Amino acid sequence: MIDKTVAYIIEHADANIERLKELLRIPGISTDSDHKADIRTSAAWVLKVFTDCGIDAEIVETAGHPCVIADTGPVEGDGPTVLIYGHYDVQPTGDESLWDSPAFEPTVRDGKIFARGSADDKGQALTHLFAAEAWMKTAGKTPIRAKFLIEGEEEIGSPNLGPIVEKFKDRLACDYVALSDTPKLDKNTPAITYGTKGMVYKEIVVTGPSQNLHSGSFGGVITNPGNALALIVNALRDSDNRVTIPGFYDGVRTITEEEKRRMNDVGFEEQAFLESMGAPALTGEKGFSTIERRWCRPTLDVNGLFGGYVGEGASTVIPAKVMAKVSMRIVPDQDAATISAAFDKAVHAATPEGVHVEILNHNECPAYVCSLDSTGIKAAERALEAGFGAKPAFIREGGSLPILALFKEKLGADSLMLGFCMPDCNAHGPNEYFGIDDFHNGTKAAAHLLAELAR
Amino acid sequence: MIDKTVAYIIEHADANIERLKELLRIPGISTDSDHKADIRTSAAWVLKVFTDCGIDAEIVETAGHPCVIADTGPVEGDGPTVLIYGHYDVQPTGDESLWDSPAFEPTVRDGKIFARGSADDKGQALTHLFAAEAWMKTAGKTPIRAKFLIEGEEEIGSPNLGPIVEKFKDRLACDYVALSDTPKLDKNTPAITYGTKGMVYKEIVVTGPSQNLHSGSFGGVITNPGNALALIVNALRDSDNRVTIPGFYDGVRTITEEEKRRMNDVGFEEQAFLESMGAPALTGEKGFSTIERRWCRPTLDVNGLFGGYVGEGASTVIPAKVMAKVSMRIVPDQDAATISAAFDKAVHAATPEGVHVEILNHNECPAYVCSLDSTGIKAAERALEAGFGAKPAFIREGGSLPILALFKEKLGADSLMLGFCMPDCNAHGPNEYFGIDDFHNGTKAAAHLLAELAR
Repeated sequence: MIDKTVAYIIEHADANIERLKELLRIPGISTDSDHKADIRTSAAWVLKVFTDCGIDAEIVETAGHPCVIADTGPVEGDGPTVLIYGHYDVQPTGDESLWDSPAFEPTVRDGKIFARGSADDKGQALTHLFAAEAWMKTAGKTPIRAKFLIEGEEEIGSPNLGPIVEKFKDRLACDYVALSDTPKLDKNTPAITYGTKGMVYKEIVVTGPSQNLHSGSFGGVITNPGNALALIVNALRDSDNRVTIPGFYDGVRTITEEEKRRMNDVGFEEQAFLESMGAPALTGEKGFSTIERRWCRPTLDVNGLFGGYVGEGASTVIPAKVMAKVSMRIVPDQDAATISAAFDKAVHAATPEGVHVEILNHNECPAYVCSLDSTGIKAAERALEAGFGAKPAFIREGGSLPILALFKEKLGADSLMLGFCMPDCNAHGPNEYFGIDDFHNGTKAAAHLLAELAR
Repeated sequence: MIDKTVAYIIEHADANIERLKELLRIPGISTDSDHKADIRTSAAWVLKVFTDCGIDAEIVETAGHPCVIADTGPVEGDGPTVLIYGHYDVQPTGDESLWDSPAFEPTVRDGKIFARGSADDKGQALTHLFAAEAWMKTAGKTPIRAKFLIEGEEEIGSPNLGPIVEKFKDRLACDYVALSDTPKLDKNTPAITYGTKGMVYKEIVVTGPSQNLHSGSFGGVITNPGNALALIVNALRDSDNRVTIPGFYDGVRTITEEEKRRMNDVGFEEQAFLESMGAPALTGEKGFSTIERRWCRPTLDVNGLFGGYVGEGASTVIPAKVMAKVSMRIVPDQDAATISAAFDKAVHAATPEGVHVEILNHNECPAYVCSLDSTGIKAAERALEAGFGAKPAFIREGGSLPILALFKEKLGADSLMLGFCMPDCNAHGPNEYFGIDDFHNGTKAAAHLLAELAR
């Protein structure tokens, strides 16, 4: 049966690309309330893919943007049930002048389709929808029962996914969650991501005088909030790029020798990786390799800085208020709440006399890692090899997917993360893209996944 | 003669306030090209004050906004010639919602006139014009030859004042420059400012990756420009609030015991000063008093910070580029060029591996200090006492007036800085004001100054 299904996918390759373009043209930016209607249009578009091929589907309202829930219904045999997760909302475009073609006018160049959401996650999510559709069109059913949860709030942190999963616990019940919202290892190697970092995202706000002051008349006699902020932020790391927050590393699981070996075997190309970032050098925590730092070590990064005069030229103010957004990526078994509290304590301890400090909490989620020995992971491995003609790499991800912990907690299911797009796909930057071949191979792999899980 | 002149000033007090209001209504913001016509209207208004009372005056074009040059012409006797400097341009209003009455609708409350430019410098400059006018109206001449240079670009750093002074060197030749663009010591004490700090204003730009990167996928493996900037900025000062740039203090003139005594005698009220700033505490360089820090010690301040995500909530980017505006106030005998070079060297030395750093130079001017023993200073002292009925304080100023060094260099003249407005007059902030009594007393003092210089 799979041959017919794959043949159908190959036959409809161009049509699938045209349909992907259709969805990419809808500017469903979830963080921007001006695009609320576009989010709804996207949901309706997704719904139609399901209903057109005979899969039951429904738009489900949430406290924010709606999601789409679909279900093929029970199938014969004792195969597992899979819940395929994806999201149709996208990041803002950022500075549009940095895009070589408009973010919402999908454009094909060099075998890649450029558009906001092409990789993250419209393109990758659609592979699973088109794979299920191919099964429905060729076999009249999917090899296993497939459920779908496609949401519209991933890029704003999935605030309503928890309530939805809780509410529809039974309806969404599954043995595995499958999703494609992570990248390949490199051009030739699809990937299964088996671990992600968690996150603790903070904002440090330092205030001093009641308003901006003249730095001549008032310089040197009060603590400058800008200087204080530099001091505080700098106190959080040392010259070995280790985080200095007391207790920060207490919960970190040691990397086993086997995992180290597996990571090194992955054939990670440091030079190409560095070039893709455009940074002057690879640096990082002393005592660890680049791949270890990326996949297994917790980090602390400044994400934003603001305060005082930021226009052209000079203005001699002592800023009344400055802020730094600082986030930490945490790893198993660091506890987010513990790290959050330790961060606050360290910031207060570092704050010099003469300023006030306030800490805002923006985001907090645990890390995730799953066993590589499950039948689901084995099935995913075979599916990727069948779809891409290459053995997948097992990788971990520095990013955070709070939904993984959510699915594990609410549904008891581990997640199979199949990566089809390139690691330098510019997911949140300008010129986001998804390789055309990767899109088609991903669709084939998604079709194989349903067959392999049935075995 | 002075009695008649002072009587004239008293008699015309209300009329002078009305005329000040007229000028204050013209929104001559020099930094904003939308207000170019207002600058010209202001210049014409100033010109008319001179010509109406029989003082030769002319609007002189520059490469930017025009200035007004006036001259009473030679007078009998061997008194010195004074060049009175002022500026009719003003700062932007900033956030207009913070003003209790509109910035360009002068409003009298509690004996103060509130408007942008009331103190800085329209109000203070007009005292000298109205004083000269009173002499012309009552004596038909001024006691000494008085020249005037009233410019329209002070708030943008007087970019064309150098060329103008150079070009009209002979026409502007003088023994003393007199100006009122500095404050009183406190409510009861007018002040003569005899020293100002110089400035070296820099912008540190740190770049890393070629674009903002996802802090999950790329955190921990490259140097984050935001963290690097915090490190660099923090490396410029130590925990004693001393600047750590090698050689920074080499040129600093030691404060003499006499000057220390004089500073302490000034009766500076620390608590009131702290309250006026609204900061939590007075802090500063270890080993010096607040007044010493403010008047005589060099400083280093962050003036602005920017980079990465600065909107609401969280966005997990590693910023590609961040910047800090950092300025130093320097004192006699620090050399601006030497300090500038030492700063650059220190920044480069502190820059960690993995980022590029670029340093922009925005501003550089030397400190200024003059002897307290000149006949000009003595005359100014007597004039202030006569005008305000209180002995003036001799103060130094943390701010910078690059024009002082310019006048010294081009005209060989020291500057007499007579302060009439309150130190908390909000010169560059919302609700700028000038006390009505201070305005009248200042006008009287300015009239006395011409008489005292003639003695």
